[in-house]
Amino acid sequence: MIALLPSYLKDAWWTPDDAADATIVRDASTGEAVAHVSTAGIDLAGALEHARTCGQQSLGALSFHQRALLLKRFALALTERKDELYALSARAGATTADSWIDIDGGIGVLFAYSGKGRRELPNGTVVVDGAPEPLSKDGSFLGRHVHTRLPGVAVQINAFNFPVWGSLEKLAPAFLAGMPTLIKPATPTSYVAGAMVRILVESGLLPDGSVQLVSGAVPGLFDLLRVGDLVGFTGSASTAQALRAHPSVQTGGVRFTAEADSINASVLGLDAAPGTPEFDAYVRQLVTEMTAKAGQKCTAIRRAIVPAGAMDAVIDAVRERIAATTVLGEPGAEGVTMGPLVSTAQRDEVRRAVALLQEAGGDIVVGSLDDPEVIRADGTRTAAPEGAFVSPLLLRFADADADAPHMVEAFGPVSSVLPYTSIEQAAALVNRGGGSLVTSIATHDPVLAASLAERIAPYNGRLLVLDRDDARSSTGHGSPMPGLVHGGPGRAGGGEELGGIRAVLHHMQRTAVQGSPDMLTAVTGVWHAGAAVREGGEHPFRKPLSRLRIGDRFSSPLRAVTLDDIETFARFTGDTFYAHMDEQAAAANPFFPGRVAHGYLLVSWAAGLFVDPDPGPVLANYGLEQLRFVTPVSPGDEIRVELTAKQITPRETDEYGDVRWDAVISNQRDDLVASYDVLTLVAKQ
Amino acid sequence: MIALLPSYLKDAWWTPDDAADATIVRDASTGEAVAHVSTAGIDLAGALEHARTCGQQSLGALSFHQRALLLKRFALALTERKDELYALSARAGATTADSWIDIDGGIGVLFAYSGKGRRELPNGTVVVDGAPEPLSKDGSFLGRHVHTRLPGVAVQINAFNFPVWGSLEKLAPAFLAGMPTLIKPATPTSYVAGAMVRILVESGLLPDGSVQLVSGAVPGLFDLLRVGDLVGFTGSASTAQALRAHPSVQTGGVRFTAEADSINASVLGLDAAPGTPEFDAYVRQLVTEMTAKAGQKCTAIRRAIVPAGAMDAVIDAVRERIAATTVLGEPGAEGVTMGPLVSTAQRDEVRRAVALLQEAGGDIVVGSLDDPEVIRADGTRTAAPEGAFVSPLLLRFADADADAPHMVEAFGPVSSVLPYTSIEQAAALVNRGGGSLVTSIATHDPVLAASLAERIAPYNGRLLVLDRDDARSSTGHGSPMPGLVHGGPGRAGGGEELGGIRAVLHHMQRTAVQGSPDMLTAVTGVWHAGAAVREGGEHPFRKPLSRLRIGDRFSSPLRAVTLDDIETFARFTGDTFYAHMDEQAAAANPFFPGRVAHGYLLVSWAAGLFVDPDPGPVLANYGLEQLRFVTPVSPGDEIRVELTAKQITPRETDEYGDVRWDAVISNQRDDLVASYDVLTLVAKQ
Repeated sequence: MIALLPSYLKDAWWTPDDAADATIVRDASTGEAVAHVSTAGIDLAGALEHARTCGQQSLGALSFHQRALLLKRFALALTERKDELYALSARAGATTADSWIDIDGGIGVLFAYSGKGRRELPNGTVVVDGAPEPLSKDGSFLGRHVHTRLPGVAVQINAFNFPVWGSLEKLAPAFLAGMPTLIKPATPTSYVAGAMVRILVESGLLPDGSVQLVSGAVPGLFDLLRVGDLVGFTGSASTAQALRAHPSVQTGGVRFTAEADSINASVLGLDAAPGTPEFDAYVRQLVTEMTAKAGQKCTAIRRAIVPAGAMDAVIDAVRERIAATTVLGEPGAEGVTMGPLVSTAQRDEVRRAVALLQEAGGDIVVGSLDDPEVIRADGTRTAAPEGAFVSPLLLRFADADADAPHMVEAFGPVSSVLPYTSIEQAAALVNRGGGSLVTSIATHDPVLAASLAERIAPYNGRLLVLDRDDARSSTGHGSPMPGLVHGGPGRAGGGEELGGIRAVLHHMQRTAVQGSPDMLTAVTGVWHAGAAVREGGEHPFRKPLSRLRIGDRFSSPLRAVTLDDIETFARFTGDTFYAHMDEQAAAANPFFPGRVAHGYLLVSWAAGLFVDPDPGPVLANYGLEQLRFVTPVSPGDEIRVELTAKQITPRETDEYGDVRWDAVISNQRDDLVASYDVLTLVAKQ
Repeated sequence: MIALLPSYLKDAWWTPDDAADATIVRDASTGEAVAHVSTAGIDLAGALEHARTCGQQSLGALSFHQRALLLKRFALALTERKDELYALSARAGATTADSWIDIDGGIGVLFAYSGKGRRELPNGTVVVDGAPEPLSKDGSFLGRHVHTRLPGVAVQINAFNFPVWGSLEKLAPAFLAGMPTLIKPATPTSYVAGAMVRILVESGLLPDGSVQLVSGAVPGLFDLLRVGDLVGFTGSASTAQALRAHPSVQTGGVRFTAEADSINASVLGLDAAPGTPEFDAYVRQLVTEMTAKAGQKCTAIRRAIVPAGAMDAVIDAVRERIAATTVLGEPGAEGVTMGPLVSTAQRDEVRRAVALLQEAGGDIVVGSLDDPEVIRADGTRTAAPEGAFVSPLLLRFADADADAPHMVEAFGPVSSVLPYTSIEQAAALVNRGGGSLVTSIATHDPVLAASLAERIAPYNGRLLVLDRDDARSSTGHGSPMPGLVHGGPGRAGGGEELGGIRAVLHHMQRTAVQGSPDMLTAVTGVWHAGAAVREGGEHPFRKPLSRLRIGDRFSSPLRAVTLDDIETFARFTGDTFYAHMDEQAAAANPFFPGRVAHGYLLVSWAAGLFVDPDPGPVLANYGLEQLRFVTPVSPGDEIRVELTAKQITPRETDEYGDVRWDAVISNQRDDLVASYDVLTLVAKQ
């Protein structure tokens, strides 16, 4: 008896009482039952409510950095037990290499978001977006944008092909944003996703209500969603369409992003003739994309768009490389490099799609639709009709303008080769996909790359330029990276995932806030020019983070700048630019009244004016941002500096944090001389 | 005989041959016919094709800065003839103050985008987004995001209330992005929008195919749209819903943004008791929002959420202020401050909505549903049932929890007062709007403002905090600003407009580009570390923009740093921070091996190492960005600097442009000491 896969709801495991209707999930290679799946009687409304109350509350109590640190600990917990996931993943047809993409790839996303969250987000709960917008002449009214987390639940609806990565690449940004997640894996690999969630649960690290899992169908789920909720869907374009049409999305204000399989392309440049490193890299990449995960990747290359004259050479090279490197069989069997599709249903679906391509003029030039001979777990070689095996298939289209290769997706180890003769035509063919996740270009010609990129970029979420310089270091056509946007326009679903912090912000609402400097300071947690300051008394550099507050200010006295100072600085630094040294030449410059002080003299002196020399909580000045020199300083002018604590970011794992200071240098007439931010590290105590 | 309003299609004016089905548009005050509108026989497919070919081509030939300059010239052309627009606008019921919002407001958006386009965008056609993402350890493969314009047409579907502003606030960012626009005004005010387009056409400034106008209905328009096109809709939530459901949007990849009227709120803070400046400002703002444009604003205050104890005081104050300041009548008649609604149909619609609010428990406490007495053009006072006049109406709800005030919009001079007793309840009431364009808060308590803002921000596109400090300078609850996002979640349509460059990017596709540094340099037009450089020969500071190329580099020799140098610099600047002066204290600091050189010494010396002293094309170093100090420099170390031209931005209207240089300071062991961007102005010749 195969057990029913439990769901994880309201911080507890749940299994239906009556599972008469359970779906049987089978081993991709052998057809043996692996799991039963049912959600009969599930309380989805209760799960959503738990997320919106308990989940929102427990995540809301954490800062971005605290959430980011938890992501790292999730990654470590999964790493420790990843062998369990590899073992289960093999039953879904994944080779070790395939599982690496899914499991280590997913863990890698957690690490990446953990790092980015701590480096690129403040240690609070609100993200400020863009610069302040002045809205009044006197500075009493201004605007600023903030991102605050959505108040609902992030629902994941995932594809079968990457049960671990797919869950984690959505969980990481949602969790970081502070949104609780409900994971709905695809049924064929739900036992892998379930095992991943179990490791997280057993780690004891999950904040209450932050993660729930539904193993099985979710009837009526969309009826329960409302404004403030978000759905991240990955799967077929047709399912995306059906879900997007739901009233909760159409009129209920539920955010819906789709990342749909698309008819991705790979273009061989006109310069990349057989014999060039780019030709070889192109063929290697094409075969990898056909065979990795048995071609069941939303990002796989479906269309190989190659110069008409190179078509046969490409086909021959692909045939040779597949023959030399690809061995079909049960994952784990000796020598096997490519496993079965996830299910026999999926296999039959691929065969139907290939038939459509054939009808439209595609000739199979590599591989065959027959059941291939495969290596079984016991080392024997047999055809295995009970397994979901399909051999790699390459089709040749003499006519690149046929509709089918640009519209029909065979979600397996299947690509079509299409000929082109000009860059314009290659671009037009790429764009016939109607919006793709990714297109790659193999070329060593930067002009060609730029010209093609300009034409196809608006139809693609990602472009990869492959050449001899990056062929070895390239992460590959098919691999979404945590720091880069994953998603594409049109057919690809129109959504964006990943892209670093961009995906975190996708789980938040951007709001313009208008008010006085004091109010903007209160709402954003960042000091705004014109807001209240505290000065006099203790120098703010004497205050550790425990006592430092935004608005704490040091104001220096004036210091006179003489011509002798300018000449001394010029001699010392070697900076004898004529604007500092030659009265007549300086006056002829459109920006200077005559000889002026070096900008670097001014910021160096400013540091001398504001610094507190003795050891204290300020540990280092590690940088400076947005320095602008506004009014030139002439000999005889005087300068002073105001330094105001603008943003305070304690670090979670260090005894210090980042303090950003607003620095303003003025002259004796109160003209603005220069403004910038000073970045320092300051001890907590 | 009233003439048929022409459309402007394919760079020519067009009028239907047969206008038997024409709609009659009437004067809002008098009911006289103003225009006939028909699109019988219109060639919409031809218009779209013209935009996608000719319009894309002519705009694509211009850089962002060139487009931005054209926007300024559009603004000047409209300013010159704005009296024509004011005169027409009055016939639609707009007082001079109302028209100022529409006409001068619209022109202001053009000026704002012209300025932002030149200040914040490169002078090219591609926008780089975010920092480079390292993807390989050896630096040979990296990623970067770019925005390229959408390849189709930007279709505007506008509301009747702001025919000029509504067209221009969408045109400006689309035009700047390089997308041709098709304007579809609302029929009741299409003659005003048409007159605005006529001024632009007659200015001779419009690039071919960049702007088209459809005066009248657009049957079948959505069937003709496809991926790469974009629709910007403003109007009712129900129309938004119907349009969004079209297959072109659902599955065709057409981008659709809606900015729908929403049930906006204004909260009177618990601290803002009668007699405080905030109470007065709150009442003034509420009356302004009820009466400006006769309340026909998507952003108007529909819900006045006030402390239960202050309810009667608010109502009395509103009543008094309306009595003292509001005079209904025909626009232009002596003393009139509030005009009619746009049409009698709209008036009847408002009366129906008010009836629903009354049924749900709302008592009319200010104003009446009867035809009000109004001042006619000839100065007489009469009721005017043939005009679309409605008096300002305030309703009082004893029960704030009723559904209707949070759901029913009376799109006229109508607001409801609702009581609350705690911040939590006030927030919950605001959020019952299901997503709003804007909520304002009148309070002088920053803690209250921040606490309320945190709760309601995710349900709002914009928040305004009104207090004694900004009451005079505030641009007002109802006024979208070009630099701030306009749009809101849920009921408000889920879209974003304006927000400065954010709206330009909305007309572009974000694409992740992966490749070698050379390829990223070619695709983005910005030099990337690791890409080809040219060095030796002429110092790049000797090259004007005409000869300077990205990748041009100057490499300095090494220069030794001595303890004496550090002490000299400390004495000269006054920066005697212990890390530079005290070996023992410096070594105790977690970041320094012992006494180290000042960071400002290093950047000052770097300037001395790279500067070319004689007059030449480099006019000024006006700033510095992203300075990071990485490896400390100890006495005895040597430093050198590499300066590489990274981005070149010639200015359209000056004889110089901006050059951003990549600066890298290294030590004698090739450790990275510091990196930053140097910003200079360089002459073109």
